[in-house]
Amino acid sequence: MDKKKVLVIGGGFGGVFAAKALERRARGKVEVELVNANNYFVFQPLLPEVAAATMHSSDAVVPLRQLLRRLQVRQAEVRGIDFDTKTVIVVQGSRLTPIELKYDELIIALGTRVDLKRFPGLPEHALTMKNLADAHRLRTHVIGCLETADVTSEPELKQQLLTFVVVGAGFSGVETVAEMRELIRHALKYYPNIHPNDVRVYLIEYADRILPTFPADLAEYATRRLQIHGIDVLTGVGTKSATASGVELTDGRIIPTSTIVATIGNGPHALVEALDLDLHWGRIKTDRFMRVHRHDGVWALGDAALIPLVEQPAEDPSHYAPQTAQFAVREGRQLAQNILRKIEKRELKPFAYTSKGSLASLGMSKAVAEVYGVKLSGTLAWLLWRGFYLSFFPGFAGKLRVLVNWLLNVVTPPNIVQVQSTSPATRYIHYRKGDRVLEPGMLIDGFYTVVKGSLKLTIDNPETGEHFEKLFGPGDHFGERVLLRSALRTGLVIALEDTTVLWISQKDFTRFVRAFPFLENYFKEYIDQTFGGTEESFAPGSANHKHELETSP
Amino acid sequence: MDKKKVLVIGGGFGGVFAAKALERRARGKVEVELVNANNYFVFQPLLPEVAAATMHSSDAVVPLRQLLRRLQVRQAEVRGIDFDTKTVIVVQGSRLTPIELKYDELIIALGTRVDLKRFPGLPEHALTMKNLADAHRLRTHVIGCLETADVTSEPELKQQLLTFVVVGAGFSGVETVAEMRELIRHALKYYPNIHPNDVRVYLIEYADRILPTFPADLAEYATRRLQIHGIDVLTGVGTKSATASGVELTDGRIIPTSTIVATIGNGPHALVEALDLDLHWGRIKTDRFMRVHRHDGVWALGDAALIPLVEQPAEDPSHYAPQTAQFAVREGRQLAQNILRKIEKRELKPFAYTSKGSLASLGMSKAVAEVYGVKLSGTLAWLLWRGFYLSFFPGFAGKLRVLVNWLLNVVTPPNIVQVQSTSPATRYIHYRKGDRVLEPGMLIDGFYTVVKGSLKLTIDNPETGEHFEKLFGPGDHFGERVLLRSALRTGLVIALEDTTVLWISQKDFTRFVRAFPFLENYFKEYIDQTFGGTEESFAPGSANHKHELETSP
Repeated sequence: MDKKKVLVIGGGFGGVFAAKALERRARGKVEVELVNANNYFVFQPLLPEVAAATMHSSDAVVPLRQLLRRLQVRQAEVRGIDFDTKTVIVVQGSRLTPIELKYDELIIALGTRVDLKRFPGLPEHALTMKNLADAHRLRTHVIGCLETADVTSEPELKQQLLTFVVVGAGFSGVETVAEMRELIRHALKYYPNIHPNDVRVYLIEYADRILPTFPADLAEYATRRLQIHGIDVLTGVGTKSATASGVELTDGRIIPTSTIVATIGNGPHALVEALDLDLHWGRIKTDRFMRVHRHDGVWALGDAALIPLVEQPAEDPSHYAPQTAQFAVREGRQLAQNILRKIEKRELKPFAYTSKGSLASLGMSKAVAEVYGVKLSGTLAWLLWRGFYLSFFPGFAGKLRVLVNWLLNVVTPPNIVQVQSTSPATRYIHYRKGDRVLEPGMLIDGFYTVVKGSLKLTIDNPETGEHFEKLFGPGDHFGERVLLRSALRTGLVIALEDTTVLWISQKDFTRFVRAFPFLENYFKEYIDQTFGGTEESFAPGSANHKHELETSP
Repeated sequence: MDKKKVLVIGGGFGGVFAAKALERRARGKVEVELVNANNYFVFQPLLPEVAAATMHSSDAVVPLRQLLRRLQVRQAEVRGIDFDTKTVIVVQGSRLTPIELKYDELIIALGTRVDLKRFPGLPEHALTMKNLADAHRLRTHVIGCLETADVTSEPELKQQLLTFVVVGAGFSGVETVAEMRELIRHALKYYPNIHPNDVRVYLIEYADRILPTFPADLAEYATRRLQIHGIDVLTGVGTKSATASGVELTDGRIIPTSTIVATIGNGPHALVEALDLDLHWGRIKTDRFMRVHRHDGVWALGDAALIPLVEQPAEDPSHYAPQTAQFAVREGRQLAQNILRKIEKRELKPFAYTSKGSLASLGMSKAVAEVYGVKLSGTLAWLLWRGFYLSFFPGFAGKLRVLVNWLLNVVTPPNIVQVQSTSPATRYIHYRKGDRVLEPGMLIDGFYTVVKGSLKLTIDNPETGEHFEKLFGPGDHFGERVLLRSALRTGLVIALEDTTVLWISQKDFTRFVRAFPFLENYFKEYIDQTFGGTEESFAPGSANHKHELETSP
């Protein structure tokens, strides 16, 4: 008899524990393959520590191949599923030849993705805390803010750089803000020009209290701890919009900041959204056995799935399995069992599980916990938090590495290494009416096109008395002269209304234009007509610098 | 009396040890500031271990602020120097307002950069080992090759992915190839579909032996060790050119590979090149006191400088200080002393130092060493290597972290976590005549413009018998229909001659075109004319896939 082929797509808690259970219980009966975009499993509870630089990135994750030794792991991106022919289409690495994988049973464990599109500016200007790269990016960003704040001579910029805003006060938001606060506190002794009072950290929650899944008194304790820790906890207020220089709240307040971390806004995985699946609240509808409606041999679990806990679920989230790691793990085990039962033609078992409790770390060796109905807070809860997650972390080697990270942090100074990642080539930037897009004398580092709204450029040259003004509407652009000169200076650019701009880095813009004769001619003519082909410049500044800093809008 | 302001630009061995010596000896007399693009000092000898994933990235470096507690550290990019007004112009963080820093004494310690432009294709297709990001990128790349090789069903691709080439057999090349080999060896047990014999590792050196600075018998020992280790050592042969799929040697051989690591090709830092400085062999000419010619108060040291060791140096490299960390450290101390002497109006001292020896690690707990004329090889030399670098690593906390990395590697499995970095938005790709640019049925992930050379597209549809051919020359482009469809398939594209293509990612191309009405109209018309505006597609493939995989050139 041919072994049945079980394909698991997604390597989070749900997918991994389902695969592990199949590996253990159904060996010989099924052939299991797990497909995931990354080659590692992310231990989500440790991500805030990665963001706070107290945990090495690769120590908060476990390579899937080490976790699942006896089954095939495939690092690939799922591009499509054909439910009729029972085929999953993937691409692997940089090789863009689509590969078809056949399955008998398919487990969809793709999780969710961050979806911030309801909040203008947030998708472009907020950092997220969903995966390892996010956590690493946040850490790099925070340290970058401290570096610039320490040496800038502009007080407004300094205040903006030293204001940190975390949006959403569930587990992820609370633990992230607490750990980030701790990183900043410990790092400050290396930044002599930053006074501790210069730092502002906000936690913003739309509901009227933080940690909604916890009992009210624990949430209150947590709020007090965060406040003692130096965090402004704002509840009952949401986020309206964001720009590169601040966040606007629903009560009209604007907080100038360079750092917005959004832990809100869950949406379905792009693939889940594109497939012919019945979704509700953005999640895949399943029956109580985790079978996906309408498609034979297809199962779903974890955050991606909407699994009823009762026979006749109503429009009530509590009638469905919550989106937590604890549930995903149980779902994985149960699902593996059901696949086995299906193959053995035995009756399936509905998913049932009751939460054993929750834990949230609050930084500074404090936490809150509710375990089997017992409430705990403070250092004891924190020790429980660490002990629990250490025991839960998969594998001996992994546990050892996590423990070593924790021990080293006691005896070594905070890790303020800023490993810079490559900056993106194109970026949408949002401005509020009145925002200063560019300051006089700033260097232009790319090409700007107005997508929406309007901007005004003003150049006043005190040396010559020259005054120059220009308006830019949708489709208008500036900075095209980076094609000709390595360092252009600008005048003052102000947003006349709420405005969106597409920015393209000098390097990529130049490459594109140079490679594409049609475009190069367009810009040659444009520059000729606009600037008369002269090397003349408008703005004051830099003529006396040896290494030429050119000037122009 | 005002304190003299000493500005150090560059945070490598030379800059850091000069700053440290000034901090220690001249406190109260001078105000020292160090400017560096990164906020950390890279301990170069450990980079190969970062590349081999045996050392965490941030443990191979030390934050400059922790290393230089009592002076100002500024993370900034130097954009220009005005020697007449004694001003350095920098930009900090993402803030593009140029800042002017005044100095009385300036130390240029900018090191060198990798310059591969003599080798066509190498700048675009080779990885380098100069800084932390490089080492991390190499590790990510090697693990990515193993991941894809484990699951691909194309034998040619598999062979290419499992062939690794290191160019240049100085310290960096030898240690990198040895560590990389070790990573692969240990990782293989997690890649069940890769047989150890499938892996090929080459070390390529233009000179007739490796490790030119070592005695011949030690170099011979090293060669044998590397061979035992499974590395093909090719000497007396250089690199001619490279493409995405292979490297061509000077003897005409072509090695198909996805991994070329270049440890050759040193050139001056871009800023050093742009400034009004006297360069020789790409290095800044100084006198024996490390003063830069023609500019008052300007000094240079380290790899960036050409410091004579004798009174009348000839065209002989041995008459100048070699570009090693050992020398840079001594230069830093001597330079600090000379600045102090200058301020105190005492006589300057010429730089003089004799190498105490060299060490090179060979992987598998072996090394070669020559210390005070004594030659050592094998495990003893390796222990010496580790002991020496551990004692040399700055700071107790740093030493502890390095030691912990080494100890953990003994008891934990290899770290095969692949932390993917964002891929670039634009990329030049080189092809040799006859290379297959795209295979039939591949997905197109961006927009391609031919910069040089020519390509031929062929589509044969076995279902309909259709045959289609098209030639692309410089300025011609394909893939523009990614604007309309999310997943396009291609036919066979072959390079008719040596060809360079500019690739732009689908995301960035689409953003640019959409934001720029002029360009959008151009492509609309172009697509209309070329494809008749129909949704017709040429290539065979995917009509039966639910999640649409569209087909087209």
